[in-house]
Amino acid sequence: MDIYQAEDTMVCTSRVPGLKQTNLRVLRGLKGNLVVATDTVGVDKGNWVFTVSGSAARYAVGDFDVLTDLAVGGIIDNWQED
Amino acid sequence: MDIYQAEDTMVCTSRVPGLKQTNLRVLRGLKGNLVVATDTVGVDKGNWVFTVSGSAARYAVGDFDVLTDLAVGGIIDNWQED
Amino acid sequence: MDIYQAEDTMVCTSRVPGLKQTNLRVLRGLKGNLVVATDTVGVDKGNWVFTVSGSAARYAVGDFDVLTDLAVGGIIDNWQED
Amino acid sequence: MDIYQAEDTMVCTSRVPGLKQTNLRVLRGLKGNLVVATDTVGVDKGNWVFTVSGSAARYAVGDFDVLTDLAVGGIIDNWQED
Amino acid sequence: MDIYQAEDTMVCTSRVPGLKQTNLRVLRGLKGNLVVATDTVGVDKGNWVFTVSGSAARYAVGDFDVLTDLAVGGIIDNWQED
Repeated sequence: MDIYQAEDTMVCTSRVPGLKQTNLRVLRGLKGNLVVATDTVGVDKGNWVFTVSGSAARYAVGDFDVLTDLAVGGIIDNWQED
Repeated sequence: MDIYQAEDTMVCTSRVPGLKQTNLRVLRGLKGNLVVATDTVGVDKGNWVFTVSGSAARYAVGDFDVLTDLAVGGIIDNWQED
Repeated sequence: MDIYQAEDTMVCTSRVPGLKQTNLRVLRGLKGNLVVATDTVGVDKGNWVFTVSGSAARYAVGDFDVLTDLAVGGIIDNWQED
Repeated sequence: MDIYQAEDTMVCTSRVPGLKQTNLRVLRGLKGNLVVATDTVGVDKGNWVFTVSGSAARYAVGDFDVLTDLAVGGIIDNWQED
Repeated sequence: MDIYQAEDTMVCTSRVPGLKQTNLRVLRGLKGNLVVATDTVGVDKGNWVFTVSGSAARYAVGDFDVLTDLAVGGIIDNWQED
C-alpha cells in the first residue's frame, strides 16, 4: 500500500461503464508522481491517504464489479512529511 | 490508475488470438514513457486519458476473454499539464 | 518479495471496512521509499522484514477478506546493509 | 502492455515444470532494461513487439497452465524509435 | 519475467505460516536492486536465474498454498553481463 496526498477530483464524462458513478480522485505521491484512485472514504484535498492496489481495490470500494485498480484505503491521522 | 496522453493507433498484423480485434493505442505518460492499451472508449490523438491495469482491464473492455493488461478507462474532461 | 525496515505504526481512524482491525505498519525500502503493509507477525521498529505483495498478501494475513496488497512475510534474522 | 525489441532466445535447462517447453525470449525495453517473455507468436531477433503481463500472460500462451507472467502479444508492423 | 543473480539464502525464524518451509533466496537484479524469491529449482550462489512473479509464482513452487509473489523459474545456461 502506498502513501499519497489528495489533489482535486477528476471529471471524466466519457468512461467505461464498469466504473459506474464512483468518485475519481487525483493523488500525488511522495516523489511527486500523479495517479488516479477511486474514493469511497470521502477525502478532502490535502488529506494524506494510503491506497490499496490490484484486485483488492475492487473489494475496497464495496462493489467487486467496479473496475478500479487503485482505491483509497484510509486517511492517515497524522503525517509529517520528511 | 494512471494518466496518459493518447498517441497513434498501433498496427499489429501478427498477434495472439486472445486480443481479438480490439483497438490498440500507444499512450505517453507524464514522464514521457510509452505504453500500449486497449481502447473501447474511442479516444483521439492528443486526448488525456486514465488507464485501468491488471485483471480489471479485461473487464473494462467488456469481454473478459480479451487478453489485455491495460485499458483506457475514460477521457479526462479538463487536464492542465504542470 | 521485497526487503524493508520497519518504521512506526500508522494510525488511520477513517478507513475502508475491508481492512478490519489489522495493524498497519510504515516500512522503509532499501532506497528510502516508504510503503504501508499489514503486519500479523508482530514486528518492532527497526526490524528488517520481507513483504509479500498482491493477492498472496491477502492470504498471508490469515483472512482472505482483509483488503491488503502488501503484508509482512517475516522478520529477517540477520541483515547487513550494504 | 509494454513495447520491447526482441533479443536472443534464452536457454534454461533447469527450470520449473510449469513452464513446459515454451520458448523463452529476452527482450530489451525502450530504456534498455531487459526482461524475459514467453513467445508463441514466433518473433525474430530485432522485431519490435508488445507484451502482455500478469494473469493475462498465461491465457496469451494458449495454455493457462504455463506459468509465465509476461508473454509476447504481437509484432508491431511499423515502429520508429524516437 | 526478470533476470537476477543468486546471492545468499535468507534465514527468517519468524514468518507467516503460509510460506511453510520453502527456501528463501536473496537475488540481485541487473541494476543492483535486491529482492527475495522462493526457490524450488535449487540454485547456487552466483547462478543467473529468471523469476516468475504474481499469482504464477504460487503455481511455480508446485503448491498453490505457498504465499510467495516471486519464484525462481529456472537457471540461465549461459549469461554474459553487458
